[in-house]
Amino acid sequence: MPEFSHLDSTGSARMVDVGAKPPMHRRATAECRVVCAAETIRALRDRALPKGDVLTVAKVAAIQAAKRCDELIPLCHSLPLDAVDVTFDVQDTAIHIRATASTTAKTGVEMEALTAASIAALTIYDMCKAVDKAMVVTDLRVVEKVKE
Amino acid sequence: MPEFSHLDSTGSARMVDVGAKPPMHRRATAECRVVCAAETIRALRDRALPKGDVLTVAKVAAIQAAKRCDELIPLCHSLPLDAVDVTFDVQDTAIHIRATASTTAKTGVEMEALTAASIAALTIYDMCKAVDKAMVVTDLRVVEKVKE
Amino acid sequence: MPEFSHLDSTGSARMVDVGAKPPMHRRATAECRVVCAAETIRALRDRALPKGDVLTVAKVAAIQAAKRCDELIPLCHSLPLDAVDVTFDVQDTAIHIRATASTTAKTGVEMEALTAASIAALTIYDMCKAVDKAMVVTDLRVVEKVKE
Amino acid sequence: MPEFSHLDSTGSARMVDVGAKPPMHRRATAECRVVCAAETIRALRDRALPKGDVLTVAKVAAIQAAKRCDELIPLCHSLPLDAVDVTFDVQDTAIHIRATASTTAKTGVEMEALTAASIAALTIYDMCKAVDKAMVVTDLRVVEKVKE
Amino acid sequence: MPEFSHLDSTGSARMVDVGAKPPMHRRATAECRVVCAAETIRALRDRALPKGDVLTVAKVAAIQAAKRCDELIPLCHSLPLDAVDVTFDVQDTAIHIRATASTTAKTGVEMEALTAASIAALTIYDMCKAVDKAMVVTDLRVVEKVKE
Amino acid sequence: MPEFSHLDSTGSARMVDVGAKPPMHRRATAECRVVCAAETIRALRDRALPKGDVLTVAKVAAIQAAKRCDELIPLCHSLPLDAVDVTFDVQDTAIHIRATASTTAKTGVEMEALTAASIAALTIYDMCKAVDKAMVVTDLRVVEKVKE
Repeated sequence: MPEFSHLDSTGSARMVDVGAKPPMHRRATAECRVVCAAETIRALRDRALPKGDVLTVAKVAAIQAAKRCDELIPLCHSLPLDAVDVTFDVQDTAIHIRATASTTAKTGVEMEALTAASIAALTIYDMCKAVDKAMVVTDLRVVEKVKE
Repeated sequence: MPEFSHLDSTGSARMVDVGAKPPMHRRATAECRVVCAAETIRALRDRALPKGDVLTVAKVAAIQAAKRCDELIPLCHSLPLDAVDVTFDVQDTAIHIRATASTTAKTGVEMEALTAASIAALTIYDMCKAVDKAMVVTDLRVVEKVKE
Repeated sequence: MPEFSHLDSTGSARMVDVGAKPPMHRRATAECRVVCAAETIRALRDRALPKGDVLTVAKVAAIQAAKRCDELIPLCHSLPLDAVDVTFDVQDTAIHIRATASTTAKTGVEMEALTAASIAALTIYDMCKAVDKAMVVTDLRVVEKVKE
Repeated sequence: MPEFSHLDSTGSARMVDVGAKPPMHRRATAECRVVCAAETIRALRDRALPKGDVLTVAKVAAIQAAKRCDELIPLCHSLPLDAVDVTFDVQDTAIHIRATASTTAKTGVEMEALTAASIAALTIYDMCKAVDKAMVVTDLRVVEKVKE
Repeated sequence: MPEFSHLDSTGSARMVDVGAKPPMHRRATAECRVVCAAETIRALRDRALPKGDVLTVAKVAAIQAAKRCDELIPLCHSLPLDAVDVTFDVQDTAIHIRATASTTAKTGVEMEALTAASIAALTIYDMCKAVDKAMVVTDLRVVEKVKE
Repeated sequence: MPEFSHLDSTGSARMVDVGAKPPMHRRATAECRVVCAAETIRALRDRALPKGDVLTVAKVAAIQAAKRCDELIPLCHSLPLDAVDVTFDVQDTAIHIRATASTTAKTGVEMEALTAASIAALTIYDMCKAVDKAMVVTDLRVVEKVKE
């Protein structure tokens, strides 16, 4: 039967003890999409994307959030990230976000990748909300997790 | 034609100047879902939900993230939140999250509500990821925004 | 029967909604003591107190912690502090700490005063722990709370 | 004569240089008590403890504070914590708190354990202060410190 | 004789009590320069400025630091900023930075403007340090301070 | 031709991947000066320096900022600092600041040293601004960088 690593035998939340685990190279990639109106994408392409600031601001926010993931997700460990990368693919009615985090540490970085993708999406939402009240952030998930 | 409030006439990102706006009571509600396997929900109902810690930890994380929204979303203003409320509805293959933030301030709180819902979802993801590798956080959106 | 303001009718934790409360001048004072060996106090008087750094570092830590009380205590509101003051009275086997916080806000500042006193005590503990392994921080309490 | 490791020869505060120290497994446990009225404990047992939220919120706050100890205590080093554990023992007129922090690092974690216990106590204080104005947090001390 | 507002009559540091001051519109502008080699500016103009990311990242860092000025400068009050604006003027051997912060609060915002300009400069330094080891950040000062 | 390590081939900002770099002992020293009126220095010498609080508060702020450099400078890595040291030399019309940071990590600490010196300067500025409206922070630069 599956075990919730973050719950002890009485059902109480706990931080997993990683003291006995060896540091390894670990990498995780998460993706999500900000679904918006076609007109929003057209306006972005016209006025926002040439200068590029919307996506750059979102990328910076994502990197900074990934570095602070342990402050946001209560039972996460503090990990020294080796790198965070965030890329965007602007489609006709959505902006696709892909965030990769890597570390050399005792535990995985999927929460850091998910946090980076989420905060990138929310930052784009913030910058576009004056022109589009109906955006949806969707399909946030881990697409790759590697340990070596 | 729609205006991006966070971009100036050259396309550069900017923080909106709210100096001339009066403080008003403002409230926003955001929702999202963590979609998981039926077996994950069954395991939660068996071992995690009776004690309640998974949802309480997620709620605390959400409240704390809402209070720090201005640190996460670069162009957001710092708002003194009057209240943050987060509720959960555990369904057969998903956990539905609803987060409401309210303030008496010069600008709206939808980013705070969205941030609270997102971080609640990520916290649940973190606590369930050992038993379910295929969860998806989806349909994050603002469902109500009020100013009075 | 007494009411836990931070619990709703189902026993779930919640942030109190202060939206309808008027801002008022509020002030609270908390005290505690760091109990140490007489020899520790003598060593402090000889080598640390003339320069004064131990108490100044503790005061700065206390002020900074009071300003971030809402990040530390999950259900606390973010309050704009008007002032934080911390004083020390070095006695023969203890350092007495007194911290006062004040604000003009919708809710009280006793948690800010208690946090300031606690972090001042821990900072002194940190700086003296190499010479005294048996210190105790004790009698932390609110000694005054004013609203006007 | 005892040496204050955090003071240089002129009495100025300093951060200890741990550059030459080897990383070791280190663990520390701190304890304290929140002393309250018997009626407060009875009310907690009636309405708060069955759902468990008061203690879970306090535990989350403690874990998050331990991870940020270096931001709170000015001369502390940033340590990657392997685990933080917090347990509560509800007695007739007090809640006993026990916090353990562990790391694999160049310096000890007693400040992290003390910070966790302190913030757990303050969080309980915050959630009970509406029903009990006379609580005292007391006997905060390190009860075990191990290096191996 | 001039008075240090942050020192009490014994020379101890203190936070100024702003409880009796009325909130006013306040604005401050700070400037500084990052002096670099002519070749660095040419390389920036060739490869970095067309895309614009170096200056956008610096602007985001500046805005975020201004919002957290109270965490960085120990005796500063927490102020709700109405706006932060940062502009850059790329000259032949320097990048000129100008940062303006505004608030409606009980105390001035020159520290927020200075912090924004400083962190913008350091962020540019960070991104250019691989190509120029001899940059200098200089002439950081307040150029305008307004209260109305 | 010089390479901007923080820009990819399209000119987009990125965090450098340090995953393949070995941890090494690294140390960096930065300096700057706060230039003030001779009368300000005389007032400091008369009333502020005997007690020492102005410089101690600046030192604490510098150490705390160095530990949080990765939160301030967006593309910086999180480094566990072994030590931070800050010294001051009060001259006739300036306060000279020298900050050294050291780590055992995969990347250098010059940004931590620069951040420490900058925040020390701004903290002094904050505490002296009531007596001197014309201070300038100048000549911030790296004076030594060592890897071994």
